[in-house]
Amino acid sequence: MSGSHFGLLFTVTSFGESHGPGIGCVVDGCPPGLALTEADIQAELDRRKPGTSRHVTQRKEPDTVEILSGVFEGKTTGTPIAMLIRNTDQRSQDYGKIVETFRPGHADYTYWHKYGTRDYRGGGRSSARETAVRVAAGAIAKKWLHERYGVVIRGYMSQLGAIKIPFQSWDAVAQNPFFAPNLDIVPELESYMDTIRAERDSIGARIDVVAEQVPVGWGEPVFDRLDADIAYAMMSINAVKGVEIGAGFASVAQRGSEHSDELTPQGFASNHAGGVLGGISSGQAIHVSLAVKPTSSIPQERRSIDKAGNPVVMQTTGRHDPCVGIRATPIAEAMLALVLMDHALRHRAQCGDVRVETPVIPGHID
Amino acid sequence: MSGSHFGLLFTVTSFGESHGPGIGCVVDGCPPGLALTEADIQAELDRRKPGTSRHVTQRKEPDTVEILSGVFEGKTTGTPIAMLIRNTDQRSQDYGKIVETFRPGHADYTYWHKYGTRDYRGGGRSSARETAVRVAAGAIAKKWLHERYGVVIRGYMSQLGAIKIPFQSWDAVAQNPFFAPNLDIVPELESYMDTIRAERDSIGARIDVVAEQVPVGWGEPVFDRLDADIAYAMMSINAVKGVEIGAGFASVAQRGSEHSDELTPQGFASNHAGGVLGGISSGQAIHVSLAVKPTSSIPQERRSIDKAGNPVVMQTTGRHDPCVGIRATPIAEAMLALVLMDHALRHRAQCGDVRVETPVIPGHID
Amino acid sequence: MSGSHFGLLFTVTSFGESHGPGIGCVVDGCPPGLALTEADIQAELDRRKPGTSRHVTQRKEPDTVEILSGVFEGKTTGTPIAMLIRNTDQRSQDYGKIVETFRPGHADYTYWHKYGTRDYRGGGRSSARETAVRVAAGAIAKKWLHERYGVVIRGYMSQLGAIKIPFQSWDAVAQNPFFAPNLDIVPELESYMDTIRAERDSIGARIDVVAEQVPVGWGEPVFDRLDADIAYAMMSINAVKGVEIGAGFASVAQRGSEHSDELTPQGFASNHAGGVLGGISSGQAIHVSLAVKPTSSIPQERRSIDKAGNPVVMQTTGRHDPCVGIRATPIAEAMLALVLMDHALRHRAQCGDVRVETPVIPGHID
Amino acid sequence: MSGSHFGLLFTVTSFGESHGPGIGCVVDGCPPGLALTEADIQAELDRRKPGTSRHVTQRKEPDTVEILSGVFEGKTTGTPIAMLIRNTDQRSQDYGKIVETFRPGHADYTYWHKYGTRDYRGGGRSSARETAVRVAAGAIAKKWLHERYGVVIRGYMSQLGAIKIPFQSWDAVAQNPFFAPNLDIVPELESYMDTIRAERDSIGARIDVVAEQVPVGWGEPVFDRLDADIAYAMMSINAVKGVEIGAGFASVAQRGSEHSDELTPQGFASNHAGGVLGGISSGQAIHVSLAVKPTSSIPQERRSIDKAGNPVVMQTTGRHDPCVGIRATPIAEAMLALVLMDHALRHRAQCGDVRVETPVIPGHID
Repeated sequence: MSGSHFGLLFTVTSFGESHGPGIGCVVDGCPPGLALTEADIQAELDRRKPGTSRHVTQRKEPDTVEILSGVFEGKTTGTPIAMLIRNTDQRSQDYGKIVETFRPGHADYTYWHKYGTRDYRGGGRSSARETAVRVAAGAIAKKWLHERYGVVIRGYMSQLGAIKIPFQSWDAVAQNPFFAPNLDIVPELESYMDTIRAERDSIGARIDVVAEQVPVGWGEPVFDRLDADIAYAMMSINAVKGVEIGAGFASVAQRGSEHSDELTPQGFASNHAGGVLGGISSGQAIHVSLAVKPTSSIPQERRSIDKAGNPVVMQTTGRHDPCVGIRATPIAEAMLALVLMDHALRHRAQCGDVRVETPVIPGHID
Repeated sequence: MSGSHFGLLFTVTSFGESHGPGIGCVVDGCPPGLALTEADIQAELDRRKPGTSRHVTQRKEPDTVEILSGVFEGKTTGTPIAMLIRNTDQRSQDYGKIVETFRPGHADYTYWHKYGTRDYRGGGRSSARETAVRVAAGAIAKKWLHERYGVVIRGYMSQLGAIKIPFQSWDAVAQNPFFAPNLDIVPELESYMDTIRAERDSIGARIDVVAEQVPVGWGEPVFDRLDADIAYAMMSINAVKGVEIGAGFASVAQRGSEHSDELTPQGFASNHAGGVLGGISSGQAIHVSLAVKPTSSIPQERRSIDKAGNPVVMQTTGRHDPCVGIRATPIAEAMLALVLMDHALRHRAQCGDVRVETPVIPGHID
Repeated sequence: MSGSHFGLLFTVTSFGESHGPGIGCVVDGCPPGLALTEADIQAELDRRKPGTSRHVTQRKEPDTVEILSGVFEGKTTGTPIAMLIRNTDQRSQDYGKIVETFRPGHADYTYWHKYGTRDYRGGGRSSARETAVRVAAGAIAKKWLHERYGVVIRGYMSQLGAIKIPFQSWDAVAQNPFFAPNLDIVPELESYMDTIRAERDSIGARIDVVAEQVPVGWGEPVFDRLDADIAYAMMSINAVKGVEIGAGFASVAQRGSEHSDELTPQGFASNHAGGVLGGISSGQAIHVSLAVKPTSSIPQERRSIDKAGNPVVMQTTGRHDPCVGIRATPIAEAMLALVLMDHALRHRAQCGDVRVETPVIPGHID
Repeated sequence: MSGSHFGLLFTVTSFGESHGPGIGCVVDGCPPGLALTEADIQAELDRRKPGTSRHVTQRKEPDTVEILSGVFEGKTTGTPIAMLIRNTDQRSQDYGKIVETFRPGHADYTYWHKYGTRDYRGGGRSSARETAVRVAAGAIAKKWLHERYGVVIRGYMSQLGAIKIPFQSWDAVAQNPFFAPNLDIVPELESYMDTIRAERDSIGARIDVVAEQVPVGWGEPVFDRLDADIAYAMMSINAVKGVEIGAGFASVAQRGSEHSDELTPQGFASNHAGGVLGGISSGQAIHVSLAVKPTSSIPQERRSIDKAGNPVVMQTTGRHDPCVGIRATPIAEAMLALVLMDHALRHRAQCGDVRVETPVIPGHID
């Protein structure tokens, strides 16, 4: 298994390269009876697609999804749902130096050493294009979780480079190209990105994702803890270098009297835990943060080596995102949905399908 | 599967509760022919055991391991290695309020809602005692990785509460009860912990773990990336709330021209990636950081509720670690060893057992 | 993973060698709240244990089980249930030729070539002693399936060597040492076995296992079909060389008009399918047959080779079962229980915990 | 996971329904560097395709495969290989009674009860059409096993209804539409099938599959034995009701002195074991037999019920195989290849990539 399989019960098997015939996945384990159309999937794909503003790559990738199986008369049948997104821009081109050299910060070097070969066209399997597949699969999970349990999964950008973005409202998120939960700060973000692009550089970002209305009891005690599986899912996204649950790294300097959330008859008094206690959901909002590194492909001269170990100077040209974090929000939401879906099914396998009514308090957005 | 199984090829199946007959695990998939004795395991367990200084719990847990299978004439046979650590202190006692109430910051509340029952004795399955099993399993992985590939896995405390601990030397780590890589700062750490204890409180910590001499090519491209599996493994440790690889959350404010590591004929020029590119080891030091929350069990009055939802005030007594991070270093090392071992085997399954000679530069300890 | 892990949701991780400290397993995924004591397990183990008649091995193996975890106040907690059976007869002895030679029909040859080493004491990991662990794990599955769904799992010997055993009644099975469902034939079986033993030989057997009251809908469509998983489980038992579901090999010469079971408002009109259609339980009795080969350890001179490839003549001494099939019935029942349990949980994960009322007709015992 | 995933390291994730847009799979874990084209796959698919003689279904299914990923410049890259076979005959038609009733011997009844819905077009997911996907995936495994280890996997029909087919030569197999290893008997088989068809009935068959040149040491000791995984793989093929390894059910009446294969310096003296000892390949030919039931779809009136439980009489029309066993040989070969491939990779994960030279004797074809 070369690492393209996700989940235990709600599984996603991903395939495809950036410049091959297409990308796609097989989603196995979806409960039968869920109303599902290609439009449900497409809506999420469109949130991630390139070319929606001047701050992201200007590539033309319509990312049109075709459902190949598992849906009959508009509903899931319980059998595998295969989805295919054809690559539209596979024109042969001159890959030049990329064939023989390793781009800094990319997987070129490690793929070549691992496999003794690599598909150098647009990064091949390591391309961020692969994340479209996650969004497609996540759309199914998101829909089922919402219809069955009322779970709401949403994300936003909480920091762009050095600029922290104070949370104002969920409504703001869809109204700007950054997924910022704050419209006042958008002009500042825009001019910041204009500067980055003008300087032929790229920048990192911080993304937050929140799941609300998650029933208490999802997750496992020791290894497959809900937070561990979330950390795995998030860190598996291209360019992610860090993951936090709840208070995250702020916990290091916290005291127990501050960190551990007290309970009251009205619910938890705070949410430093981020909605997970002992690996199991507490009914509070699950709150996750991730660090997205700056794009490695920048139009500056950088030092590298070729396959023979000789020094080269290379410069990445082409239409790259100056901040991959800008399009990361729908991907992070999808990954959280996939983890929750898998644990929803695991929970009812072992503990039955009981919906326990428990005190639930809103997640804290700081 | 209730989440007690770790790994794909080198697997650990963990069992046991804090106050039951014992804890242990079955390690399956170890290559045959590794010299292994109980003393190899015990040495690592002793690094984690309680009672080694006044800054950790004063419980008496000798944690003596018995190998039940899989080793014959001093060598592993390739069949499952079962290990058992008997609990020595199972005396019946008055659990008082704990039976009917939920301790803040603990898994009491989530276990009870998930399972409709819980072993309330010392936290049962959610007890940090379970981490001894990880250390035992990790000891085998560590030994094999070192003998077969020369991999060296070491960790240290990099921050205690608000005190950052500058890295001075690996030698220092074993010479103080904090696993601090710096002897000059130890008096400050000691007085800090004395204050925390005097104030009946607890504190968080930050732990760093580093694996050196890891061959290039371990890991998978999309989901089972080496960094994703590391994030999963670390976040599965009790009390961990955040994980970083390489530059981690600092990446958010970095530019691409700074973050992405250039290559030279002498190796990588820096290690912001933390030894992983595209999910695959680059031959550089793998550098991981984790946030450990403050202990939830503190001898202060805290608000909670009982099973009926009534408000209660409770105070945790007993011999608890005022900083669980102090004993976390051997556990984090063990988890990193388990991940690397699994990927070492996965790599040779798919790509054969070739040791490619590649430029390797030392990890950067900042 | 060296093949000691069984199941997806109700998992059994087995360990131990014939002459090591002990054998045992970790059962993970058992639903919480099942009343369970060591006596429940012991009752099944006692059905399999040696020394119960002159027709089986005269070894003394009390096979006393200890539950190490996962049960609290007499009920399962939902966490892993570890069980340990200490080996009582580990005395050092002279293994003589066995150390250097390969016993015909045994795993000596293949283990040695696979691992480059082997535990030669009593077959080590390949010993039939390992099957005690399956019986212990199966006892839990059997109990849960019966309490939750009313499933009844029973087996019997249907053929001993050339002697076919006509089914008379389930009651007979427990009243003779062969698990024969027919008391009239027992004297013939006894004198047959006496002859086999007198001739220093061994003999094969056929075992049937039946599960009744299995709800319709367990199993999966393509790969993890219920019948495929049953075939896997049965063929994994030492000495099993063939598995049939329903009509089995008789299907080869059947016509479709005979084989395919018609449906009526009162239920199916026949059960050539053996209770499985398209990989999914039909509500009929699940009927499985297995072929158990004759014991390879016989006190006759047999040709073999030593590690250097030189010819040797060897004779297996010791207390061996002249027909391993005699003790195979409880093992086959346990394996069927494990498969059904796993699929019960898988079913409710994907399709919810609905018990559909469907026409069920009794299994046909021909 | 709804049972569409096969294997641990060389995995196949299958999807698709008989009358949906298409069927296909994702093969993950293939080693890099294998030369592979669509023609390699197509050659195996053409052996299975319908319409090749009057004895099989006359449907037109060209089964043209498209490779969507994982192959670059004619070689596998080590990343997932997705394959798609478009369904060409999806015309809307009148499904009539099939929508509301359950065809005897089919999965209609069990799917409907399991999922509460079913794709009734041509059997949907339960259609034998799905086996094309196995053949496609198996073609890759077959090729790698042959190139890397010289493994040869071949099958043949050994019995058609009551007619046993004596093995004459491998060459004969490709020269008749039955995969019979004997040309003399072909006229008898043809007239037999003509009779079956004339009588509007169907018939069962027995298929044998043999793998030669398998290195000693593949397989696992306890659960994932090579023979257990083979039994699972074979029983997962539509219509298979029994599986044998080596002597199979003949073992029941064998004595140990006959069954257990002696070893000589020239190799094993016989092969009752069928090439597997203790779950691990012995270097002998692996010999597997399977029972294929007669087609359930026959143009005769049969009793059944509708969804409301009312009795109906139905007759299956359309172009069905009168003996599904006729096209089963390539499928069985593919499944054996998939199992061996997975164990080849598992073996080198745990034991390294050493090719041990061991005495190998030809398989016995009786």
